[in-house]
Amino acid sequence: MKKYAFGVDIGGTTVKLGLFDKGGYALDKWEIPTVTDNEGAAILPDVAESIKQKMEERGIDMEDVSGIGVGAPGAVDHNGTLVSGAVNLGWGVFNIPKVLNGYLDLPVKAANDANAAAFGEMWQGGGKGYSNMVAVTLGTGVGGGIIVDGNIVIGANGAGGEIGHIHIEDHEEETCGCKNKGCLEQYTSATGIVRLTKRRLAKDDTPSILRDTEITAKNVFDAVKAGDALAIEVAEQFGDYLGKGLAAVAGVVNPEIFVIGGGVSKAGEILLKYVEPAFQKYAFVACKNTKFALATLGNDAGIYGAAGLILNGEEE
Amino acid sequence: MKKYAFGVDIGGTTVKLGLFDKGGYALDKWEIPTVTDNEGAAILPDVAESIKQKMEERGIDMEDVSGIGVGAPGAVDHNGTLVSGAVNLGWGVFNIPKVLNGYLDLPVKAANDANAAAFGEMWQGGGKGYSNMVAVTLGTGVGGGIIVDGNIVIGANGAGGEIGHIHIEDHEEETCGCKNKGCLEQYTSATGIVRLTKRRLAKDDTPSILRDTEITAKNVFDAVKAGDALAIEVAEQFGDYLGKGLAAVAGVVNPEIFVIGGGVSKAGEILLKYVEPAFQKYAFVACKNTKFALATLGNDAGIYGAAGLILNGEEE
Repeated sequence: MKKYAFGVDIGGTTVKLGLFDKGGYALDKWEIPTVTDNEGAAILPDVAESIKQKMEERGIDMEDVSGIGVGAPGAVDHNGTLVSGAVNLGWGVFNIPKVLNGYLDLPVKAANDANAAAFGEMWQGGGKGYSNMVAVTLGTGVGGGIIVDGNIVIGANGAGGEIGHIHIEDHEEETCGCKNKGCLEQYTSATGIVRLTKRRLAKDDTPSILRDTEITAKNVFDAVKAGDALAIEVAEQFGDYLGKGLAAVAGVVNPEIFVIGGGVSKAGEILLKYVEPAFQKYAFVACKNTKFALATLGNDAGIYGAAGLILNGEEE
Repeated sequence: MKKYAFGVDIGGTTVKLGLFDKGGYALDKWEIPTVTDNEGAAILPDVAESIKQKMEERGIDMEDVSGIGVGAPGAVDHNGTLVSGAVNLGWGVFNIPKVLNGYLDLPVKAANDANAAAFGEMWQGGGKGYSNMVAVTLGTGVGGGIIVDGNIVIGANGAGGEIGHIHIEDHEEETCGCKNKGCLEQYTSATGIVRLTKRRLAKDDTPSILRDTEITAKNVFDAVKAGDALAIEVAEQFGDYLGKGLAAVAGVVNPEIFVIGGGVSKAGEILLKYVEPAFQKYAFVACKNTKFALATLGNDAGIYGAAGLILNGEEE
């Protein structure tokens, strides 16, 4: 019986790796630099080498390893092919499992990194125990990962779960990074929250502790915790937008749970206090009981999810 | 090798039945009345009897039949259990395949009727050849069916694809049937189009052939075809709402194709002329190439989809 799997999360500057047991426990975690020279040709050989070293170090045989899961930036199809390349790695279009398998003869599965992270949260994180889940990542942008019946929704062009660009506001003048106007991301990402706050501050002279500090999503939620009325107003606006967007998502896939992660989610449970009532307001009656939880794996979600691509289901 | 399957679509007044060959061709279609007395206890025995008669009539043996697919109103889970009953049939909570199987010893699968119809359109209708599809039904209300990788998205409470209640308009005063305000259904169902038209007519004195006729969705699109400026304005508004809503759907599951059906879709290709540009405007860049098509199976979509639950995949 196989005992282990490796989870690999390939980022633009570092590759995160993890060794997992069948129960989904991370026995070891480490990083190697991402060498993007020469169209990133060294990245997968480096990953293979690093895994071989780890196996040697720990005396793990090939036959003890179920396989290697890989999360990579860019659209990855069902076969693990990077369908549009990954610019920040220098990668073009190719099949990740086949190439990595050429360097290390173990079963390989690959997925988009955000989808892998969502899968990780389902497997061992905030969504553990659920098989119909939507992961929402509130970071510099807003991303999502949709899990239906335990499987990642990849979509026709790998754009499944691109919920940050759901149109949510008809009266927006500024353009989103995607060139549309009124995207969810423009109000609920870290930068979106800063934008909402600056707009609110400019509107009138309402006093606020945010007038004397750098405006960051963190500072806004700290001000909310301190009872700052203006910050609370911004949090309500943020919650209304996010609740409205997630209600639309629920109307499509009707998940059991939303798992909220990303830098903004470090604000903690207070975040949910502003999102859940708004979600309740906008959601279809049959979806109103959808649960909300915070992501728990942080930056490790990717390696968990990648390993989960291999191990999930095996442990049963 | 099995040659046939039956598709059954249970409605409040009639049960539609169909006999299909492995290629998805409807060899026979017929109806029986739905007897809702005594909590609808006779419905499934009647279905079994009607199928047995048809088999006798055509000299079909049990071993030639792959199974029976059933579409029923209400939320149906993965096992074919009607999780909240079906009020208009008098049915409570029970497992449809087990009960029907008790009357006729053939494999049975069951799904929600709208989802079955969506599945039918994917299998043999407007979405044939696609495995990631969203069916949109514009009738008295607005419904949807989401197919991801060839499987129906049922959702946690059977509310997958309830896209008619996606919040799409912040400035609505009237309440939707679901008790929310600003639902997609309020603007893009047959009744929604009538509402939009009446509002527009009341706004000013712009001449329109619609002033001298009964306002129905059909008449509005006939007026559009006749070049009536006011009707065209309404069609643009309708298209904008539907395009916006479907762009949100695309941001969640990124389908290859939207298949538009229901009474409103009888307007024909002209409908898509108003929806597609609006979709393009609101959709995330990676989803802009999503195709649009009209549903082709009409009221037979349900029996096709029900039979498809049994046969789809078998023909390969």
